[in-house]
Amino acid sequence: MGLLVVGSLGLDDVTTPFYKTENALGGAATYISIAASYFTSPIYLVGVVGEDFPKEYIDLLEKKNIDLEGLQIIEGGKTFRWAGKYHYDLNVRDTLLTELNVFENFDPVVPEKYKKSSYVCLGNIDPVLQMKVLVQMIDPKCVVCDTMNYWIERQKNELLELLKKVDILIINDSETRLLANEPNLIKAAKHILDFGPEIIIIKKGEHGALLISRDTIFSAPAYPLESIYDPTGAGDTFAGGFIGYLHKTQDLNIDNIKRAVIYGSTMASFCVEQFSTKGLEEIDYLRVNDRYREFLNLSKCNEL
Amino acid sequence: MGLLVVGSLGLDDVTTPFYKTENALGGAATYISIAASYFTSPIYLVGVVGEDFPKEYIDLLEKKNIDLEGLQIIEGGKTFRWAGKYHYDLNVRDTLLTELNVFENFDPVVPEKYKKSSYVCLGNIDPVLQMKVLVQMIDPKCVVCDTMNYWIERQKNELLELLKKVDILIINDSETRLLANEPNLIKAAKHILDFGPEIIIIKKGEHGALLISRDTIFSAPAYPLESIYDPTGAGDTFAGGFIGYLHKTQDLNIDNIKRAVIYGSTMASFCVEQFSTKGLEEIDYLRVNDRYREFLNLSKCNEL
Repeated sequence: MGLLVVGSLGLDDVTTPFYKTENALGGAATYISIAASYFTSPIYLVGVVGEDFPKEYIDLLEKKNIDLEGLQIIEGGKTFRWAGKYHYDLNVRDTLLTELNVFENFDPVVPEKYKKSSYVCLGNIDPVLQMKVLVQMIDPKCVVCDTMNYWIERQKNELLELLKKVDILIINDSETRLLANEPNLIKAAKHILDFGPEIIIIKKGEHGALLISRDTIFSAPAYPLESIYDPTGAGDTFAGGFIGYLHKTQDLNIDNIKRAVIYGSTMASFCVEQFSTKGLEEIDYLRVNDRYREFLNLSKCNEL
Repeated sequence: MGLLVVGSLGLDDVTTPFYKTENALGGAATYISIAASYFTSPIYLVGVVGEDFPKEYIDLLEKKNIDLEGLQIIEGGKTFRWAGKYHYDLNVRDTLLTELNVFENFDPVVPEKYKKSSYVCLGNIDPVLQMKVLVQMIDPKCVVCDTMNYWIERQKNELLELLKKVDILIINDSETRLLANEPNLIKAAKHILDFGPEIIIIKKGEHGALLISRDTIFSAPAYPLESIYDPTGAGDTFAGGFIGYLHKTQDLNIDNIKRAVIYGSTMASFCVEQFSTKGLEEIDYLRVNDRYREFLNLSKCNEL
């Protein structure tokens, strides 16, 4: 069975100190799907775009073996748009514009052939939409969910309802503190485990990632990149690499989930080296594995 | 030969959301020496205090096998004082007061028996004073230096002069960017290698530490503490555990230096669990080694 991915597809205007893009391919589901496509196929995509969504972006997704039966193209509709501006050190960004457009009235329909997917990735969109997709699935084995401060602040009850059905929550460090209302990151993560997920994966950008379950803590390093051009989509790409590897290996043992964290980090490191999805378009599985090995070596400390 | 440590000894007033201390034992050299004392002895301490420095603090240092022949006690002088206040999440602090007092006219004299120490730890004080100590040493093998934004901003030329003679620089992430005038952390560290040190160790607090040399990058995790009471002295304690382990093992191979980073992190994790030096006073080498093992496990990812 394929890997089910739901989330936004969008057009991004991104300004960094180095460059400015307009109408770039963006959206959580886009990054997740392309990243996952290096590990497994098919990817079953559920999402919505407007008539203005460029044909070349559709072609790119299809080239990556992403099944688009679940992608609604709304006649006369406008695609989701986001505009953001990064500061000098690229760690801080301002959102300049968010236009939901076709997402405002999105009613996700999961095609028949998608419904038995045992791996589901709920990309960062309104938790109400994430739930609408999830309830259409027949007995999924592993539900991975991403969210953000926007939904924690506006739809907390809906998010908490969803988290009861989520196995692995992917979230960043400030969102972890916000969701648990607790400044200590480890305490906050453990508090969130009480909401439902068995595993929390905390993305910390240039500081790597932390996996926290009831009985395990795993710390994954970040790749020491000297050239970061555009951090947009890094978190979604992490989620895509993570669940793509899990779907490929069909192994949910904790050791394999740790490896999936490193593969997620590996894909994110490619993402930020170029603009939009460019860094993910031209790699191959050999390069992915080489960088995965480098990641493992980064934190290797030979014992006496 | 003993391990030479120079730096401040002070009296700290620290306010956190949980607690408030006055006249607590503080200062870089204090934390470095006590942390190092769990690995090696004797520690040769060079520093200065006033007549007001409590006898019980002298007793504590002596109990830890710290040689005080190099400690000047200035008659009628006042000990260095620092006051700081931590915010709710303990990651941000305001300095409320810094009184140099006896440090203003400090002229460090290295006792004869200290001069052949081959391991030297220049704790965070004015780089002019660090240099005054270093030039009195006879052919040291490993010079470790800590500094901070205060000196980078006020004494940059003196610091750059000193760095020519330093083997290992310990510094935090924002100071790394400041010293190199470069927002990318990895580029910044590599730029600082051009100033002299062979190795830069970047302390990132709750995000662990990075070791960077011309041909190695090593990422060490932070210990996932659920109870952090007082971060004061954590960086100095890191330096103390780091150089204490190196002095004990007398091994400057890169694999051993990586282990020293983990031992430094281990000691820092004990430091922040209690106020002032309290967390470092009651441990033993067995507990240190147990936590060291836990640190190694934190980033362990079993390969297929």
